[in-house]
Order: sequence, then structure tokens, then C-alpha cells
Amino acid sequence: MIGGSLDPSGRGGDPARGRDGDVVLTSRVRLARNIAGFSFLTRASRDDRRRIVSLASARFAGDAVSPGLRWVDLAEADTLERHALVERRLISRQLAAGDEPRGALIAEDDGRTSIMVNEEDHLRLQVMRAGLDVRGAWDEIDRIDDRVESIVEYAFCPKFGYLTACPTNVGTGLRVSAMLHMPGLKLINEIDKVRRAAKAMNLAVRGYYGEGSEAVGDIYQLSNQTTLGRTEEEILAAFTDDILPKIIEYERHARRRLLESRRSVVEDLVHRAIGTLLHARLMNADEAVKLLSHVRLGVALGMVSGVGFDLIEELMLHAQPGHLQLAVGAELNQAQRRPARASLLRERLGAAVSAG
Amino acid sequence: MIGGSLDPSGRGGDPARGRDGDVVLTSRVRLARNIAGFSFLTRASRDDRRRIVSLASARFAGDAVSPGLRWVDLAEADTLERHALVERRLISRQLAAGDEPRGALIAEDDGRTSIMVNEEDHLRLQVMRAGLDVRGAWDEIDRIDDRVESIVEYAFCPKFGYLTACPTNVGTGLRVSAMLHMPGLKLINEIDKVRRAAKAMNLAVRGYYGEGSEAVGDIYQLSNQTTLGRTEEEILAAFTDDILPKIIEYERHARRRLLESRRSVVEDLVHRAIGTLLHARLMNADEAVKLLSHVRLGVALGMVSGVGFDLIEELMLHAQPGHLQLAVGAELNQAQRRPARASLLRERLGAAVSAG
Repeated sequence: MIGGSLDPSGRGGDPARGRDGDVVLTSRVRLARNIAGFSFLTRASRDDRRRIVSLASARFAGDAVSPGLRWVDLAEADTLERHALVERRLISRQLAAGDEPRGALIAEDDGRTSIMVNEEDHLRLQVMRAGLDVRGAWDEIDRIDDRVESIVEYAFCPKFGYLTACPTNVGTGLRVSAMLHMPGLKLINEIDKVRRAAKAMNLAVRGYYGEGSEAVGDIYQLSNQTTLGRTEEEILAAFTDDILPKIIEYERHARRRLLESRRSVVEDLVHRAIGTLLHARLMNADEAVKLLSHVRLGVALGMVSGVGFDLIEELMLHAQPGHLQLAVGAELNQAQRRPARASLLRERLGAAVSAG
Repeated sequence: MIGGSLDPSGRGGDPARGRDGDVVLTSRVRLARNIAGFSFLTRASRDDRRRIVSLASARFAGDAVSPGLRWVDLAEADTLERHALVERRLISRQLAAGDEPRGALIAEDDGRTSIMVNEEDHLRLQVMRAGLDVRGAWDEIDRIDDRVESIVEYAFCPKFGYLTACPTNVGTGLRVSAMLHMPGLKLINEIDKVRRAAKAMNLAVRGYYGEGSEAVGDIYQLSNQTTLGRTEEEILAAFTDDILPKIIEYERHARRRLLESRRSVVEDLVHRAIGTLLHARLMNADEAVKLLSHVRLGVALGMVSGVGFDLIEELMLHAQPGHLQLAVGAELNQAQRRPARASLLRERLGAAVSAG
């Protein structure tokens, strides 16, 4: 059994998924950068954009700034590839949908590093890591940032720091975020308390999956809102040493409370989710994420055999339209995706459960 | 696979479950009778009631009127036994709950024959049969009625026929009913049309399971409302040769329409029900009946292997509080019944599905 029981040490989770993997799916660090000598994209000509694309694709691809970066021309890429990159969070929805010259450098191997070109800023560097590892991601992106800066000159002003298209990014241009799984707080009806507390600490809280107001699958993305007037170290320290440990502990406390007072309700929820995933013949993406979230809780609480966090994350990804179509190897409309998704989940989860 | 696919001959169903078992769960015939020389129960003294109980228990038990009738003194029977008899429809809720001298003669072997004593009338004879077999039940009850009449004199008046406590039963004292499974009509939203048509044909339509207005599990009991002014043969002929075949065909037509236009939706419904039954850890009785109803539809449509109508009927019964407690061998409160019910269903259905 992967996942193990609720870890009383307070660390928890499957080591393969990174530190605090029972609550933290991924950590992410992003730097907004602009290249000196070009207008900001709000004012850039199509020709400026083209020159930035040429520069980035020629100079940053390969191993120049980070190992194995592949250039993806988003003006040329097909819809499925763009969707899949968005689903893997390697590029933004905004970049995928644009019609200007633009692209991204993608680390195929780790699937965790990317540089968006001509998104809101000329360059957006991004590194993700499994579990709680904001500092690991920071060390990595800091290295990439240095390499990029050895190739191009950044727009920088001694008074304000890095200049960015949107004032909220001026300064360090740094945004740190973590994707948290908080089913425990949801089940004990304290998720709104956490949202309020996070806002009071100047964090942005967004549901990760789902378009509506409710976060599908109890997965939330927390990120810092301001980058100006604080050093990178201050931002990192506040996020990783203070805020996140508190929220993680809060979620774990909720899970302990649930186990003490409502264990059978949680077991029922977890196993019903498994039953539906193993038997349904039609499924939409939101329901898949919601059910997988319940299974993930079961894995974290040691209630499920044969299933690990890695598999669940992979299935959440493959339940998304782009990845699903790539997995099936065909373009599918929404009505066709529902049986294909159900079938994929049934087979993949079924294989893991029967081996478990 | 038991159950087989939708039978294009229009007969359908698993022969072991009786004719038209794809739609008709059971047929029932009941006769209301009173014994001459005793007041109707609305006016009977406690002593009268006691004498009727003595007479019935002494003279009808054993093989005197029907093979293997066991006398159950309901003033003495424990709560669980009374509940179980109600759940098997061998006695009414009203008879189970009374506090006057009363009882029932129960055929243990077939579980389909009973005589209630001191319910609304002195005697209520009842025979059930699997599937559509109102005439078989009638032949059987007619024999029992003759035997009873050879022992006691019935209250009878040449002008009105058999006299009963409630005027709606005067005449033949005959009520015929059938328990119908109509998930197809429910799914195509035509169940209300059937209800209206049945009422227009002077039939009573009741949900069988569930206390609310909606019939849980899409199971409805249809019965004739009047017994006066028509012969037994007229009542039986109208019910079995005219009304029921029409309704059965209407349900089958709905199922065919579903298979043509929404097969995957039906398959999804059926398999989700199986998934939930095989994995849930807590379940109340209404949900169990609802899910089993969907599985039953799947069996009728040939979508499920290893499961037959008999098993589903048995599980619907064992999901009820009385039978559940008898199966577990312990008294359980409502909170205790939910995990016990889930466990029983999981094991029993799981064994059938993995053998199928």
C-alpha cells in the first residue's frame, strides 16, 4: 500500500510525491521578466513580438538555460497540444488562446519547467515541484533566471526592481504558489475559514479545477499577491515557513477530527468514489476530479490499497479534455469524451486496485 | 447470465421468476372474509376477538386449509418477527402494530400464503405468486377459501355477497394486485401518464417501497379498487387479460426506446448502481432499493452477468430493517443498520458478480 496512514509526525504523505504530499500536490515558483529594449506587450508591435519569439526560441531552447527545453510555437501548435500544456499548467489559458506570435519553452523530461514567451510579460519563468518544495523550486528558477539574464538584459529599475506589464508583479516579479488538497476542511465545513484567513494574510485563493465558485475536488491554489517592497527571501520565508505549515496542519487536524468522530462516513465517501470510478460508463471531468479527490483522501488516511498519490494526480490530469484525447489518440467532442473518460478511469484505477 | 436480454417475444424475464418477470415482481390475490356469528371487528369485544383467534389458530393451522400453515400469535411475537412478516407482505403493518388479540397463519415453505386473523376483517386470505400469475394465485386461494368455508360459516348475504367491515370490500371481497417494476417509464418521464391511466381504469396505484409520495425503486403496486357488482371472473379477466398486459407492454416499450436512444445512459446508471452497492460502507434502505432497482433493469436488459431477479428480490428484502437484523442476528438501531446493510449487500452482490 502506498500512501500510508495519517502520519502522526505531522509530515505525512508518500515520499515519492514530495514533502507533505498528503496535503500539498505541487509547489510552484514563477518569475515575471521583460527584456530591455522592447516595449511591454501592451504596447508592442506585432514585429516586436515576433523578434522576442525569435530571440527566445533561438537562444533559450535546448540546454542553454535549463536542460532539455523544447520550443513550442503556440501560433502553430494544434488545439490538443495547447490544451494539454494548459492542463499540465506549463502554459496559461491566456497564452494558449492568443493569436499573436507567442510560444513556450517546455522541459519535456521533468514536465515541471517552462518559460512562457509573450504572455503578459515578455518572459514568464516557471518551476513546479511535487509536494511542499517552494525553496527547491526557487533554487532552480533562480539558476534559470541567472542564465537567461546572461543572454538578455532584463528591464530593471533600481528603485522598483524588475519592471512588469502589470503593477502587481513589479519588484521581485516573484509569485509563489502551492496547490493544496483540503477535503478534510471541506468536510468539517471550515474551508471558508481558511479562505478568509488566507485572504487576511494577503494570499490569493483559487479553486484549481472547475470554472464555478466552488473548487472542484477540494483542490485550492494559494499564492502571494504582492511582489513589491519585499525581498524574495521575505516572500519565500513567509509562504513556506509560516503560512503553508499552518494551513497544512489545519487540514491534518480536520482529518484527525473526521477519523475520530466520523470514520465510517469518510470510509463510505472514499469507497463510494472508488466504486463509481470502477463502474461508471459516462463521466464528466468535474465529477472525475471530485471522485479522485475522495480517493486521494482515502489514500492519505490509509484506507485504500494499491493506489498512490502519483496515480491519482495522473488520473486527474488524464480526465481533462486535452489529455484524454491525447490518450485515446483521437479528437472527441464532449459527448464522446464522457464514455472515453469513464473507460480510461475504470481501466487504470481497476488495474491498480486489483494489484493492490 | 441469468435474466437474459430484452425478450422480443414480449414475454421476457427469467422463467424462474415467473411469467413477465422482467416487469412483474409478484402477483397477489386477497379475500376478505368474516365469520358468521361474530360481530365485525369495529364492534367486536376483546372476548370475541379472543374466540376468533382461538378458532383460527386451532382449526386452520397445520395442513387443514393449506399445507404447512404455522400460527403466529402477534400479541406475543417479538418486534423483529413482526417486522419481517410485514416486509415479506405476509401481514399488514396495521396487523403488526395492533394491541388486540390477533395473529396470522403463515406458510413457511412457500412464503407466499397467509391468513391474517383480526386485521380489518376476521379473516384475510392471501396468496402471492412470482411474476404475472394472478390466475394461479386465484386458483390457490379459491381452494383455501373452500376449505375454510368447510370449517366455518362465512358472513354472506345473497344480495351483496360476502360482508366485510369496510364497504369497499363487500361483494367478492376480492382484491387482486401486482407489483410492477417500471424504471423504463420513470426514466422517460411517463410514469405519471401510467398512474393517470391506471386511475382512469379504477386501479389503485401505490409506491411499494418508501413512505413519501415518490415510489422508491420504481416499484408500484397496482390493485383493483371495487369488489362489488362484478364477479370474481370479471375482476380477474379485466386485471390479467386487459390492464396488466397493456402496462407491461408500455414499460417494455419504454425500455426499448431507452436502448435505442440512450443505451449508454442506461448502462451508466446500471453500472454505477452496481459500483455503489459493491463499495459503499453505509447505506439506508431507500437507497438500497433504488440501486437494486437499477441493477434489476440492467438484468432485464442483459447488461449484467451473474445476477438474477431472485437475488435482487432477496436483497431488496434483506435491505429492510427487520430482515437485516434477522440476517445479522442482532437488534440494531438505525445508525447501526447502515453499515450492516452496506456490508451485507457488498458481500452478497459481490459473490454473485464475481461468480457471474
